[in-house]
Amino acid sequence: MLEFSNLPDSRPYQLFHQYYQEAEAANQVLAYAFAVSSYNPSTKIVDSRFVNLKYIDGNDWIFFTNYKGPKAQAFEGHNQISALFNWTATRMQIRIKATIKKIDLIKSDEHFKGRIKEKNAVAIASNQSQKIESYEAIEEKYKKVLENEDLSKRPDYWGGFAFSPFYIEFWNGKDTRLNHRQVFELIDEDWQDSILQP
Amino acid sequence: MLEFSNLPDSRPYQLFHQYYQEAEAANQVLAYAFAVSSYNPSTKIVDSRFVNLKYIDGNDWIFFTNYKGPKAQAFEGHNQISALFNWTATRMQIRIKATIKKIDLIKSDEHFKGRIKEKNAVAIASNQSQKIESYEAIEEKYKKVLENEDLSKRPDYWGGFAFSPFYIEFWNGKDTRLNHRQVFELIDEDWQDSILQP
Repeated sequence: MLEFSNLPDSRPYQLFHQYYQEAEAANQVLAYAFAVSSYNPSTKIVDSRFVNLKYIDGNDWIFFTNYKGPKAQAFEGHNQISALFNWTATRMQIRIKATIKKIDLIKSDEHFKGRIKEKNAVAIASNQSQKIESYEAIEEKYKKVLENEDLSKRPDYWGGFAFSPFYIEFWNGKDTRLNHRQVFELIDEDWQDSILQP
Repeated sequence: MLEFSNLPDSRPYQLFHQYYQEAEAANQVLAYAFAVSSYNPSTKIVDSRFVNLKYIDGNDWIFFTNYKGPKAQAFEGHNQISALFNWTATRMQIRIKATIKKIDLIKSDEHFKGRIKEKNAVAIASNQSQKIESYEAIEEKYKKVLENEDLSKRPDYWGGFAFSPFYIEFWNGKDTRLNHRQVFELIDEDWQDSILQP
């Protein structure tokens, strides 16, 4: 479910790839899901939610969402986010700090075309995170879209974000609680590594 | 591992308690672990990490940490956080926004006394998140503390934080992607609920 391409040679990328494969091999549920956390300077609110990572293409870590939803608004106001993976199957926690931006529209078009029509119907039908009178009203909106709309055409309020890490920590939990914490920080375009106390 | 006491009658608390029990019954790994996200106004950095929730006592959701670490510093500068539980076993995600403060020292003393000595040795030995020359240096510091220190005495740099939610969302994932999202917001001391679009 997570596609790697143009994977950088640098050690944190190679390690992430290796640990991801280990998590998958250990049957980690939703290994590609991560908590993305944001700060909205207008509301002064920190918020967090799980999303699914779809691609790591070079330095771009890409996921898709509604461009009008609260998280997209927060990214516009403050373009630094955290991304947190937690693979209990291998006791690995990956802690990332990154800057975030929208991807090219053409890439969002391509990705949208490749999805199943039911998912696209949800993306088209939903004013994400807006209130609605009932869950039944959501189901009705969805059914109408599924029957009547062109489900291969990306709506302009839906697309990808790419984040580029400047900090990656590999946190490996230990029974002793002496957890192993290896950190990589991007300094002048070089990744510097260090060990942190647990 | 998570103790409930003085549980409020309000619906979001009763629902959280019910869904927590369902997650435990479904053998959710680390159901009491959650991602706590912070914003540090000095560094302008959003960050996130998993911690273990120990108590819900009335409106206080309590966990313990190092008071000199980066997350404690962020809480001092910006006392609003998010807390995110993700129970894949029951497809429930609990999204919380809350304000946070330190708990009474005496309660931290009591909790510290009740922990196993090995955990306390880690708490005493570790300058949490500070760099150190090697993992072996961590092990040496730990061994010295374990042999030489009074492990029942809480160090002043360790203690509890309590957060009090003002927003709780129960997000239930569906195969259709028409996820069920029920939100409770604390408005003038009353919990108002609504349904959000997926």
